[in-house]
Amino acid sequence: MTFLSQLDWRHATKAFDPEKQVSEADLQKIKNAIRLAPTSYGLQPFKIQIITDQETKNKIQEVAWNQPQVGNCSHLLVFCADPRVEDHIENYLELASGGTAEGREKLAGYEGMLHSFAENTDEAARWTWAKNQVYLVHGFALAACAELGIDSCPMEGFDPQAVNQILTLPPHLQSTLLLPIGYRSSEPRDKVRKSEEELFKD
Amino acid sequence: MTFLSQLDWRHATKAFDPEKQVSEADLQKIKNAIRLAPTSYGLQPFKIQIITDQETKNKIQEVAWNQPQVGNCSHLLVFCADPRVEDHIENYLELASGGTAEGREKLAGYEGMLHSFAENTDEAARWTWAKNQVYLVHGFALAACAELGIDSCPMEGFDPQAVNQILTLPPHLQSTLLLPIGYRSSEPRDKVRKSEEELFKD
Repeated sequence: MTFLSQLDWRHATKAFDPEKQVSEADLQKIKNAIRLAPTSYGLQPFKIQIITDQETKNKIQEVAWNQPQVGNCSHLLVFCADPRVEDHIENYLELASGGTAEGREKLAGYEGMLHSFAENTDEAARWTWAKNQVYLVHGFALAACAELGIDSCPMEGFDPQAVNQILTLPPHLQSTLLLPIGYRSSEPRDKVRKSEEELFKD
Repeated sequence: MTFLSQLDWRHATKAFDPEKQVSEADLQKIKNAIRLAPTSYGLQPFKIQIITDQETKNKIQEVAWNQPQVGNCSHLLVFCADPRVEDHIENYLELASGGTAEGREKLAGYEGMLHSFAENTDEAARWTWAKNQVYLVHGFALAACAELGIDSCPMEGFDPQAVNQILTLPPHLQSTLLLPIGYRSSEPRDKVRKSEEELFKD
């Protein structure tokens, strides 16, 4: 299977078979796709919590309009934005430089650009920026699932504050999107999509 | 090639070979991936302008910190957010109902949910919402390019107002992300990414 050949097959799965679990090997591939997704300046401003505990899934389902896919999925991925720009910058420079002064020196130009970005981005804009990256990375996670024949359901419909509390997230993390994954228990309706003419302009 | 097997190969391409063009067949596949990407409530609040005209690419490069990938790419995709929620709702209901009164009647519950969403979402939140969808769909576009062996460069670094002007976009469209696509002219540096332990929590 490939991502492109699975585009019609994939859909926002509402009913998962609670008996079927995603394998560790496949989960690893999904995590790898998320990890290798591109983000703004390469800063990866997010953290993802992976939940398999049924009680926690049930609690989150309650604050997600009781949508059943949250409880009956195999794994629930909670995508959290993390707007701590300076920390991400330091982390990036440490990684990219190999931790040496010489490596760091070579990155001086990029470092200046990163600090300028930080200085010109206020708290509200940092949250927006981090959340934007979460959406893009979420697209990579969905694409990975499709290629692996794993069902998924991208979800905005939940109370983020309540999920933050259930997971006792620190203040620098905000739950932004949910992604239940697993295996469908029924076939979906046909997709509804705008025409190509409606969506694109040459 | 598959998306997952191309994760290491793909990178944010800064230098495209201006002689190599993306074929119409491949462009079609990328458009199809974008069209079939999931969005909030299925509303697809975006429009994508595809630019091949060199003069227009050059003008946009000038308002994108003069980054060369804008000018030397094969096709430049300009992802625009479109926050006209009511229009998208009407469009969706028309498509999903097959245009019949009976079909529409069956969607009454969903229609109520959509209108409730519209009523509870102010102008600023509509823009944020539409832009979020653009980021997710952008992820699908990048994944499609990777699978096809086509290089791409996701870009936030440009002046959106200036691009809106260059493209004489109507006020309901806002350029949000650029995606130059084509074929690399040089090999990239190694990727810099956080560790799995840093990004995920079980």
